[in-house]
Amino acid sequence: MAKLKTAIVGVAGYTGAELVRILAGHPELELVRAFGSSTKGQRLGQALPSVNGIAGLGDVSIEDLSEVPSSELRALDVAFTALPHAESARVGAALYRAGVQVVDLSADYRLSDVATYERWYGAHPEPELCREARYGLVEWHRAELAGARLIAAPGCYPTSAVLALGPLLANQLVAPDGIIIDSKSGVSGAGKKPLPSTHFSETSEGIRPYKVARTHRHTPEIEQELSRIAGQSVSVLFTPQLAPFSRGILSCCYARALPGTSVEACRDAARKHYLGSLVSVLSDDALPDTLWVRGSARAQVAYALDGTTGWVIAFAAIDNLTKGASGQAVQALNVARGFPEELGLPLVAQFP
Amino acid sequence: MAKLKTAIVGVAGYTGAELVRILAGHPELELVRAFGSSTKGQRLGQALPSVNGIAGLGDVSIEDLSEVPSSELRALDVAFTALPHAESARVGAALYRAGVQVVDLSADYRLSDVATYERWYGAHPEPELCREARYGLVEWHRAELAGARLIAAPGCYPTSAVLALGPLLANQLVAPDGIIIDSKSGVSGAGKKPLPSTHFSETSEGIRPYKVARTHRHTPEIEQELSRIAGQSVSVLFTPQLAPFSRGILSCCYARALPGTSVEACRDAARKHYLGSLVSVLSDDALPDTLWVRGSARAQVAYALDGTTGWVIAFAAIDNLTKGASGQAVQALNVARGFPEELGLPLVAQFP
Amino acid sequence: MAKLKTAIVGVAGYTGAELVRILAGHPELELVRAFGSSTKGQRLGQALPSVNGIAGLGDVSIEDLSEVPSSELRALDVAFTALPHAESARVGAALYRAGVQVVDLSADYRLSDVATYERWYGAHPEPELCREARYGLVEWHRAELAGARLIAAPGCYPTSAVLALGPLLANQLVAPDGIIIDSKSGVSGAGKKPLPSTHFSETSEGIRPYKVARTHRHTPEIEQELSRIAGQSVSVLFTPQLAPFSRGILSCCYARALPGTSVEACRDAARKHYLGSLVSVLSDDALPDTLWVRGSARAQVAYALDGTTGWVIAFAAIDNLTKGASGQAVQALNVARGFPEELGLPLVAQFP
Amino acid sequence: MAKLKTAIVGVAGYTGAELVRILAGHPELELVRAFGSSTKGQRLGQALPSVNGIAGLGDVSIEDLSEVPSSELRALDVAFTALPHAESARVGAALYRAGVQVVDLSADYRLSDVATYERWYGAHPEPELCREARYGLVEWHRAELAGARLIAAPGCYPTSAVLALGPLLANQLVAPDGIIIDSKSGVSGAGKKPLPSTHFSETSEGIRPYKVARTHRHTPEIEQELSRIAGQSVSVLFTPQLAPFSRGILSCCYARALPGTSVEACRDAARKHYLGSLVSVLSDDALPDTLWVRGSARAQVAYALDGTTGWVIAFAAIDNLTKGASGQAVQALNVARGFPEELGLPLVAQFP
Repeated sequence: MAKLKTAIVGVAGYTGAELVRILAGHPELELVRAFGSSTKGQRLGQALPSVNGIAGLGDVSIEDLSEVPSSELRALDVAFTALPHAESARVGAALYRAGVQVVDLSADYRLSDVATYERWYGAHPEPELCREARYGLVEWHRAELAGARLIAAPGCYPTSAVLALGPLLANQLVAPDGIIIDSKSGVSGAGKKPLPSTHFSETSEGIRPYKVARTHRHTPEIEQELSRIAGQSVSVLFTPQLAPFSRGILSCCYARALPGTSVEACRDAARKHYLGSLVSVLSDDALPDTLWVRGSARAQVAYALDGTTGWVIAFAAIDNLTKGASGQAVQALNVARGFPEELGLPLVAQFP
Repeated sequence: MAKLKTAIVGVAGYTGAELVRILAGHPELELVRAFGSSTKGQRLGQALPSVNGIAGLGDVSIEDLSEVPSSELRALDVAFTALPHAESARVGAALYRAGVQVVDLSADYRLSDVATYERWYGAHPEPELCREARYGLVEWHRAELAGARLIAAPGCYPTSAVLALGPLLANQLVAPDGIIIDSKSGVSGAGKKPLPSTHFSETSEGIRPYKVARTHRHTPEIEQELSRIAGQSVSVLFTPQLAPFSRGILSCCYARALPGTSVEACRDAARKHYLGSLVSVLSDDALPDTLWVRGSARAQVAYALDGTTGWVIAFAAIDNLTKGASGQAVQALNVARGFPEELGLPLVAQFP
Repeated sequence: MAKLKTAIVGVAGYTGAELVRILAGHPELELVRAFGSSTKGQRLGQALPSVNGIAGLGDVSIEDLSEVPSSELRALDVAFTALPHAESARVGAALYRAGVQVVDLSADYRLSDVATYERWYGAHPEPELCREARYGLVEWHRAELAGARLIAAPGCYPTSAVLALGPLLANQLVAPDGIIIDSKSGVSGAGKKPLPSTHFSETSEGIRPYKVARTHRHTPEIEQELSRIAGQSVSVLFTPQLAPFSRGILSCCYARALPGTSVEACRDAARKHYLGSLVSVLSDDALPDTLWVRGSARAQVAYALDGTTGWVIAFAAIDNLTKGASGQAVQALNVARGFPEELGLPLVAQFP
Repeated sequence: MAKLKTAIVGVAGYTGAELVRILAGHPELELVRAFGSSTKGQRLGQALPSVNGIAGLGDVSIEDLSEVPSSELRALDVAFTALPHAESARVGAALYRAGVQVVDLSADYRLSDVATYERWYGAHPEPELCREARYGLVEWHRAELAGARLIAAPGCYPTSAVLALGPLLANQLVAPDGIIIDSKSGVSGAGKKPLPSTHFSETSEGIRPYKVARTHRHTPEIEQELSRIAGQSVSVLFTPQLAPFSRGILSCCYARALPGTSVEACRDAARKHYLGSLVSVLSDDALPDTLWVRGSARAQVAYALDGTTGWVIAFAAIDNLTKGASGQAVQALNVARGFPEELGLPLVAQFP
């Protein structure tokens, strides 16, 4: 059977590079076109050192999507769009309307409430599509994703926080208010563009918070998903931090235990919910490490409870580019297409 | 005037190495004897690559303290003891009784309540001295340190947490319960002994929590100090994490704002308390970075408040070996001796 | 068709972990038994955080090979042995004699001259097998590897040096004497055992040479292979260095250009020799970066020539655990079995 | 006695920041004015996080030098100029002519042959001053530096190479041709401006060569100094590499031993030449590590000889910002002023 003709829009960015890596091992997806604007005209091997010299793949020519006739776009089966917000929505909408199944890796289709989107990101160019898009966190939206034609791949921080806290809120094990999410991200999360804040000499030996106290755009996405799961409004305090490694997010989430909650109840709720999925619930006193999921589409979660203060701590570790972006995008597509969820995904972490 | 004859006991460890660096620039302290057990008989330059080749300093011979007659010890003015707990207490007590002024960098004299100490560390070999020791966090114990002959240099994590939260609790700006301290430490905090958990290949590209939920020994020290400052019992949830850099601790401390508290009130309280000290209160939206205090005896704190959830976030960044250990030990000694607090301390961070 | 029943001996080490990752994506190899001594009795997911929680794989039980009856060993098709030298030879010999196809990742079967082996490593427990073993550097031994039943996977440093210099010596482009190999390795090359020399705090921010001036054991292996290729005796000066990253080797090899040699002649010789292989010859002025082959079984080589001094510089970058060890071991097995050379191997680097 | 009124021009760059750190501990130099163009109008504490919050120092206002009347400049005793090349020459010349003693950290006054300068850098704005400037490598130009009013602080790579090779060439222990210098630099050497080549995600886990085969601008400076020392023309092959740490350069220099040369003869030559200086000659088989000189104005050198191939290896490790730039600039000024060479310099490395 022929593979699905697949395109990546924004191929030279970090999530684009990770999609290229994943597609190379996927039995049902074939990268047939690669789009980029600043890298237009380059061979893929020039833009991405990771495929330099690989016969075939390295020789794919990067095209400017705006120069491709829509008749050719209609020949695509699937497109992954990984562009800056607003631009990604526009391009994704055009492809979607051309009949292409779209998985968007930007924030554009993640928030179902357009007003909320616009408060954080500015005007939405395709507001009416927000309701059609399906949120691609497979572990909590598996059923709705079946057959989906427009999928919003979740943000990296929200993925980590929702995977950790979801089972607790779904099972009324913790209070839905006063939740704190203290997250540490590797620098690749800041993208490919060189900035003072991502310059090696000024990021390599320190750790720093940024966009704290309800100023980071992932806040409404986290709250949307936790509220859906809890069945009531959840607000959180989210503190992102930049740490000196390339890949990975560790989130330490703090929530108040409700009466009767035990650490075993937390673990059981998670084990039950994540059974057979790509999320490992660590046993006993094992705690996640971002190193242990590096390059893998899997996540690790763990739970602890401090009887003295009444806090539950829900931990999650993911690779921000794999589970937190490109791997999850493919996982959601797998579900939408009826493939096995983990088809073609890197599962074993690169260790060390 | 002659300098004070100073000894370091445990000179080959990381806090010992940092003391050697600091003493080299101190106008009133002279390193006259260096003690170590596993490095006994080596020249200092062999044990510490940082002084290899420095005439004089590199040639100091490392001695075994137990082989030195007490008559010779009595000739010392000051000793810094940096040994494993219990052993440090014993050695420090002997020196103290020989009339030497002692600054102990272990946990042994930090907890004034012996029962608490023994719950976390086991039997205390010198319980009666616990009451005589002065806690060396200069910013909160300046007066008591004047003239002190036995000083307990604070732990690295407690230093960061107490500097951040102290002004808030002292001024009733936050509630004394439900406090969360989420701290990330560089690997040097784990000491010089190679372990699987500090092996480069398994720590260099990830971040992981450890000893969570009231299992880390710095918990009672943090609670002791915050309770003293608050004037009432404070309990905290402390989550230490190991991050892939050598030096530094970043603590993000979460406490509930009391009615009327503003972020400016938090900053003002800190500015007032830390005026003229080695603690910088960052302005506006600047947030601390451990890179910015690397190698410095200074600390940076900052504050944020989220009106929606009511959480105050108190941030602190320190170098765990300088402000968090050896620099602070010398700072406390300076105060005890009546020297200017910052005498001989490295203040300008090594940047980048 | 049934997959080949495959065992890994020494599964908990770093090359073992990398074999597990690679086998998980190999269509013809199935990991059926995992052997370890210090991890005996653990589930694979306990010993290797990279497979923690993966159903099936994570639950494989680690066995002690010495407790397994030889009748069971005979049921294996393939074994990868990754043990300390001498021990690896013994275990590999036993498996080989039991009819199992063996790929040994230690140094034991790499040197065909037993006397040379014994000068560098001590007594060889299975000297007669040294002649039967095939050296697994596919790019230079493809024909001999067909049908091989005992394969010595090359060392990591020799792989990088021979890939870079081989085409130059094979084509008489450089003089065979006076060659310098200046190599920088990531810390994973030092193995899993924690040592002072691999302790994070003492390796993370510096670079240092070690075992210089003909004292590193990879010297005779490099000379053996370069001499084979050159058709005459080649001696080299090899300078290994430990650099602060986990994975990768960059070798800068210096050789004197013979009259008439141009940089294009060097590139052409390499392009011709490596056509269709897993080695990329970089074009123009592109130079290799270990980051660009991270996690990939591919290598990158490049060439430069300084007309003023007459030196050719041959550069190679590999991932020491993939191309330099486990990936190459599988590549050699693929060739021995008649599979496509790259079958099941990760080719696209993890970038960034 | 009043301290020397000192200015830094280009204070917000990395060598500027390091000068600020060093001046803070120097008993004879007082930073009275700080100049910058892009940071003009900021307080020093805003531009340099390393002095944020330090009373006095952090409050110094950064000025634009071009707006300061020359009458005010004449009040300065000393200026350190750390600007891009050509611009640095112009500014330095103006200050020099105003009677200010100038230490220039750019390449502008390092090459005494203007034609050579112009081949590598373009037109020199102040060619006639090139002959007046003194090259600030104290260990090889101590006598000429006495009383110097215009000093060129050496480049970082040349410092490492000349310190390692100088004693060998001065004593005819190695041949002056065919020398190879394989150098690895930390990323701070690339300066403060964010670039793709210094972006954390693309530099943090790899090592790569750049500007190889006589294309790096430090080549003529190395050759000038080695030729002066050897008393004959020396040409070298220089291979710079970017490695994933902030500070430090390790150079491995390869030169052919002349008949009779032993490793002890190399060490003795170096020990004799560097006696009492800031250069440590390591004993026996100890080899330098950039970590061991981090933050120190000292250098470490070591020697090895391979009898089989006849190569001598001369190793040097320095901190590129301290010994390789700002520390060395102050050291040269100390000599020019008749102060003790090491006055005010950080000597003990920050370890770990």
